Amino acid sequence: GHSPMAVVQKVRRKANQSKPPPTPKTLNPSSGHSPMAAVRVILPHPHLPIPSWRPQLKPSSSYPRRAVAAPASLSPSPLTASLQLGDVIEAQQFDRQVLNEIFEVAREMEAVERGSHGFRSRVLEGYLMATLFYEPSTRTRLSFEAAMRRLGGEVLTTENAREFSSAAKGETLEDTIRTVEGYSDIIVLRHFESGAARRAAATAEIPVINAGDGPGQHPTQALLDVYTIKREIGRLDGIKLGLVGDLANGRTVRSLAYLIAKYQNIKIYFVSPDVVKMKDDIKEYLTSQGVEWEESSDLLDVASRCDVIYQTRIQKERFGERIDHYEAARGKYIVDKKVLGVLPKHAVIMHPLPRLDEITVDVDSDPRAAYFRQAKNGLYIRMALLKLLLVGH
Amino acid sequence: GHSPMAVVQKVRRKANQSKPPPTPKTLNPSSGHSPMAAVRVILPHPHLPIPSWRPQLKPSSSYPRRAVAAPASLSPSPLTASLQLGDVIEAQQFDRQVLNEIFEVAREMEAVERGSHGFRSRVLEGYLMATLFYEPSTRTRLSFEAAMRRLGGEVLTTENAREFSSAAKGETLEDTIRTVEGYSDIIVLRHFESGAARRAAATAEIPVINAGDGPGQHPTQALLDVYTIKREIGRLDGIKLGLVGDLANGRTVRSLAYLIAKYQNIKIYFVSPDVVKMKDDIKEYLTSQGVEWEESSDLLDVASRCDVIYQTRIQKERFGERIDHYEAARGKYIVDKKVLGVLPKHAVIMHPLPRLDEITVDVDSDPRAAYFRQAKNGLYIRMALLKLLLVGH
Amino acid sequence: GHSPMAVVQKVRRKANQSKPPPTPKTLNPSSGHSPMAAVRVILPHPHLPIPSWRPQLKPSSSYPRRAVAAPASLSPSPLTASLQLGDVIEAQQFDRQVLNEIFEVAREMEAVERGSHGFRSRVLEGYLMATLFYEPSTRTRLSFEAAMRRLGGEVLTTENAREFSSAAKGETLEDTIRTVEGYSDIIVLRHFESGAARRAAATAEIPVINAGDGPGQHPTQALLDVYTIKREIGRLDGIKLGLVGDLANGRTVRSLAYLIAKYQNIKIYFVSPDVVKMKDDIKEYLTSQGVEWEESSDLLDVASRCDVIYQTRIQKERFGERIDHYEAARGKYIVDKKVLGVLPKHAVIMHPLPRLDEITVDVDSDPRAAYFRQAKNGLYIRMALLKLLLVGH
Repeated sequence: GHSPMAVVQKVRRKANQSKPPPTPKTLNPSSGHSPMAAVRVILPHPHLPIPSWRPQLKPSSSYPRRAVAAPASLSPSPLTASLQLGDVIEAQQFDRQVLNEIFEVAREMEAVERGSHGFRSRVLEGYLMATLFYEPSTRTRLSFEAAMRRLGGEVLTTENAREFSSAAKGETLEDTIRTVEGYSDIIVLRHFESGAARRAAATAEIPVINAGDGPGQHPTQALLDVYTIKREIGRLDGIKLGLVGDLANGRTVRSLAYLIAKYQNIKIYFVSPDVVKMKDDIKEYLTSQGVEWEESSDLLDVASRCDVIYQTRIQKERFGERIDHYEAARGKYIVDKKVLGVLPKHAVIMHPLPRLDEITVDVDSDPRAAYFRQAKNGLYIRMALLKLLLVGH
Repeated sequence: GHSPMAVVQKVRRKANQSKPPPTPKTLNPSSGHSPMAAVRVILPHPHLPIPSWRPQLKPSSSYPRRAVAAPASLSPSPLTASLQLGDVIEAQQFDRQVLNEIFEVAREMEAVERGSHGFRSRVLEGYLMATLFYEPSTRTRLSFEAAMRRLGGEVLTTENAREFSSAAKGETLEDTIRTVEGYSDIIVLRHFESGAARRAAATAEIPVINAGDGPGQHPTQALLDVYTIKREIGRLDGIKLGLVGDLANGRTVRSLAYLIAKYQNIKIYFVSPDVVKMKDDIKEYLTSQGVEWEESSDLLDVASRCDVIYQTRIQKERFGERIDHYEAARGKYIVDKKVLGVLPKHAVIMHPLPRLDEITVDVDSDPRAAYFRQAKNGLYIRMALLKLLLVGH
Repeated sequence: GHSPMAVVQKVRRKANQSKPPPTPKTLNPSSGHSPMAAVRVILPHPHLPIPSWRPQLKPSSSYPRRAVAAPASLSPSPLTASLQLGDVIEAQQFDRQVLNEIFEVAREMEAVERGSHGFRSRVLEGYLMATLFYEPSTRTRLSFEAAMRRLGGEVLTTENAREFSSAAKGETLEDTIRTVEGYSDIIVLRHFESGAARRAAATAEIPVINAGDGPGQHPTQALLDVYTIKREIGRLDGIKLGLVGDLANGRTVRSLAYLIAKYQNIKIYFVSPDVVKMKDDIKEYLTSQGVEWEESSDLLDVASRCDVIYQTRIQKERFGERIDHYEAARGKYIVDKKVLGVLPKHAVIMHPLPRLDEITVDVDSDPRAAYFRQAKNGLYIRMALLKLLLVGH
């Protein structure tokens, strides 16, 4: 564990490494407080002022190097804190304390966003975010770009970095990151390879946010899901959660299970066709965390007991030739008026979107249909992360 | 009919629905003047402040619902007004009064644009426009994005939403709109399906501008065409107009005919190869509106009588296999120095662009060649619409 | 030659042609000082204020036309100056004096960029840059867009203008430029055809920067290479430079040779596989400029004598079927620890990037590895050019 204050210091420290504050001091390379000072000894041309980009040239193959590079006075908290808010790489990196801090800031962001129409926030004025997307995900990209702009920041966009001429020519992700970090203050990376975000974060001196790396992680989705439960139900301990649909392949339900397990008295019901059941690794993890879970084939019964029904899309692409299996699976558990009929008044229905017909359209008008509010919460969570990573609490 | 003031109120009302002004009031959900108040009764969690995104969850399948959703005190004018400036969907939605208002604001925008170089306007500061393009149209997109930026607004761009991963996965346009409206203040939609813009507007709580929906409408093009005539000739009543080229398939000439018919003493000459003649529906409409029209095969004679020659491109893609028909058609009516020779001094040549060789390059240097000024007028018209839709007069 | 002051005046003049300053004067079309006044006589509608876009309609097929169009009082310096900073088209257009001016401003930009994090510069506030890319080059595009934003400017982006619907329909580059210049204050053009940038500049009334036109030029790359040498070594006269790798096809090494030849006591070593040797035109040019050069096949020997080793990528695409030739060529001259072992302490290794394995990764951590700083210098050079072209010194 560590104190929120420590987190803030980490945030500030990392921000400072690549971005001295815009005070006269920053133009004075010999300032003892400048992170530049720490690396001055390796500069070959003492007659030149310290170039701001020099730090990125020190070997940067692991997180610890960063702590080393930081002025000691600025890193009083354990290294893990740097992992926790120096970059956003995977859902597991967050503990309850950090989650609460993020959710508090997200809550503040609701008011900031409401107030921003016709009034430009200056919270992130002068900061530049690069959205480096190696595969298209317009929903996620627009959500991050809206978040940056609602806070007064600017954006550099690349929608298909896979055809990034350099990548096409065989440039490594690390080299691309070293170039792009020279143009921006924070990188939001979407990649088709699992682990790409971690590699990028290990290379970059500026914060990196994982916007999904292949079958790997999509931590901001997991955060907005948990935030939505807290926002809609009013608490996170003692939640009864029904996970419905494709539990075998759904990246989001797996991440959600990891995060919700950090809370007390959680009960999870798995409702899915046999071909796409939740895998044992998650079941074992939940058991090891003392989370009660059971499988059920009765959606109505589960809906009548839950605070949250989390529906997911059956992903056709996972079934290959067996269209018959797909058709059988997708029709099996539909959230419709019948489900609303048994769902408690205070409960809500969630879905990561896009949805096809696993939730019928006539459900949309029910106040308990929370999936579009959930999408909007993605904006608040991303605003909160950008603020925390760039300027701290 | 209705008063311009009413239009303004409509504009403000709709803007308010999704965007409370950034005054302390907006942070007070119980404010009687807040549109949020109107929907408070349906909120499931009274202990939570009113979320700004809740309204979009009420059934929104028709325009009237909006009038219903609006605080009565704010909607004194007929529903039609909401159609007229709550969204921009089709050329026919505008009456003379609204057209005049738009043109007045567009005229003001010329000065704003001239003054904006080196000085950032704050008219739309803090507003975010999403350009949701399901087919590429860089000219139209850049024109809208330049308009937003010249007024101090910000832009979220997606150039080919057709490959929008969500759309590709089968998400409905309505679901996409519900997500994107959570990230922005106004949506500019380009779509390949006729009627898509109307569907989007019926779903969205924020204003929607149709930037072309397939074979359907492209209302901002029609507006800039009529504005250009007024701007170049100095009036709209009593205009003699020659429509030349592909009159059968040209979306722009058809919309232009609809709009110009709203003015007095209009005379239209149709000059086109037989295979692409103006269709009867437009001819009948013009007759019903008391607009004089005739067909001619003598471009020089028509040019000598007109205030405006509106040339269009013969669209090869319409001829399929019959390249011979295409070649015959495209060469038939060319605007060249000979046409300039008979064209009145005060008259102008217009073209929606892009042009191939239906206007020879040596015409460009003549002051009566208005087509690049026409393109620039698209910027002023779009600035005017964005201002009217987001902050009113 | 000409004075830096003259250059500034050119810059201002050209900026003024299309952009009157935002003072009350600009709203007064009859102002004798307004560039509009110069063209007033050709306006057909004296009852209308002078439209700001009218000048672009005068025949604009050559540079000289511009000098003619400019109020005499504003063009005291020779035409060549207009070529030098009215547009950025080719490396050869710069003389030492202009290069020094650009480098001085680039040096100032380092401080501006360092200070811009969390503080938005207003130097280019209200200016709009259009990045018109007919082929993707994300690295170059992001570098220009970051440069514009770091100076407080705004950006209109099009990543693949080749599919620009208008271009696809057969619109000429000239027509596209005339439309886009109506929406922006400066155009950054990337094109697949040699000479495209010159054609665009001849058409546009606003500044055009060549961001690479096919096999032709990439002048901002050449400028950042020379700036990097000055920045890293501290001088440009008396430099010993080793050009390594693909010297036959590398656009960058050819441009670099042209520019460095403007300095005194330069010695160049060519180190390349026989199949991709430096061509005679450059060798003859260097000789004619009194630049000493020799070819060598001993990279270690060359490295031990040089201030700068400029490594380049062997471009597979140039070898067609002969993969065997490619493999032989690419493996021949690698910059690795052995090279570092003989390289003087003060020397640096440069590379235009992307790099494959022609520089081993273990070289990156050496302070003499300058290639990522070189990429960052591209940002400063582009900031300097945008500032000089839009607002002058």
